[in-house]
Amino acid sequence: MVMTKEKSILRVVGISGSLRRESFNRKALQTAKKIALEMGVDVDEIDLKELNIPMYDGDIESNGFPDAVQRLRNKVESADMLIIATPEYNHSISGALKNAIDWLSTGKNILDGKTAAIFGASNGLFGTMRAQAHLRQILNALNVIIAPQPQLFIRSAKEAFALDGSLSDQKLFLQMQKLIKKTIELTVLIKENKQ
Amino acid sequence: MVMTKEKSILRVVGISGSLRRESFNRKALQTAKKIALEMGVDVDEIDLKELNIPMYDGDIESNGFPDAVQRLRNKVESADMLIIATPEYNHSISGALKNAIDWLSTGKNILDGKTAAIFGASNGLFGTMRAQAHLRQILNALNVIIAPQPQLFIRSAKEAFALDGSLSDQKLFLQMQKLIKKTIELTVLIKENKQ
Repeated sequence: MVMTKEKSILRVVGISGSLRRESFNRKALQTAKKIALEMGVDVDEIDLKELNIPMYDGDIESNGFPDAVQRLRNKVESADMLIIATPEYNHSISGALKNAIDWLSTGKNILDGKTAAIFGASNGLFGTMRAQAHLRQILNALNVIIAPQPQLFIRSAKEAFALDGSLSDQKLFLQMQKLIKKTIELTVLIKENKQ
Repeated sequence: MVMTKEKSILRVVGISGSLRRESFNRKALQTAKKIALEMGVDVDEIDLKELNIPMYDGDIESNGFPDAVQRLRNKVESADMLIIATPEYNHSISGALKNAIDWLSTGKNILDGKTAAIFGASNGLFGTMRAQAHLRQILNALNVIIAPQPQLFIRSAKEAFALDGSLSDQKLFLQMQKLIKKTIELTVLIKENKQ
């Protein structure tokens, strides 16, 4: 990968759509952070469980953004790129992730023009394929740029992770490396073009 | 419509996916309740704003359902049919509605085999068309039976409602009547078949 001056100041945030502490999506996000760090990019993780933002409600918004929402918006606003690990609940993304996206989009769309690497892990055979399809449609609505390929579906998650929580399935690990690399390159390209 | 003995004991719950007090979806739900009542069916409204259920989190679930979640599950479990008014946020349903559905589905799927009438209102030209497409996919995953037609998209909502909050657009009102009637008939048919 060609390193650029811009890349060294790339700002990236990481979000897991699953709140559970031991979730495979949190674990997958940790592996993605390590991969990005090896490429010289530090990822600032936003923990939706800790942030504990309220459900989107126009009545709340009309009184101004709650503190937790404002913190979320500030963190994402300063980023060029997002890494999103999504679980699949009932063929779509989690309410927690959707709610966070809706708070980011309302008023000024904070996500406009940013890039995202998305992936997901599940114990099923399809590895969040349907949730990711919904997530792409949702992020498309907000002008978030997602590379069409590669796509990463961490299926049979119980077998894909080692005891230390790292993504040990080598095929999936290499796919994740490609996805992160591709998205960083895309982000650098867009960032350079803006400057 | 043919009235049946079963219909008199039909249990229906109504949910708005928008929390805002003055939302068009809350208003549309009130009109749907009146229409159902005229057909002899009382609708028990579940207010997600008042219920204030937490974000789905496997760590919380492993300690048992929170009180608000248990109340939600009990109300829906005793129902034969749901009426769901969905807003469209970023081409999909609200985080609040998705979160409620996820809490209803986890462990024992409370929604299994129930029927639903779904509709939505927005100020745009498509009247929640994309959110309803996602909602159908999500509810299909849970074996919720939704009639393929009629579908109801309350577009340009500002013009569709009267000052008293009722759905005053006559074409849309008649479509809502058809939708509620069709879904009640379907529910009666399914309920009779179960007995």
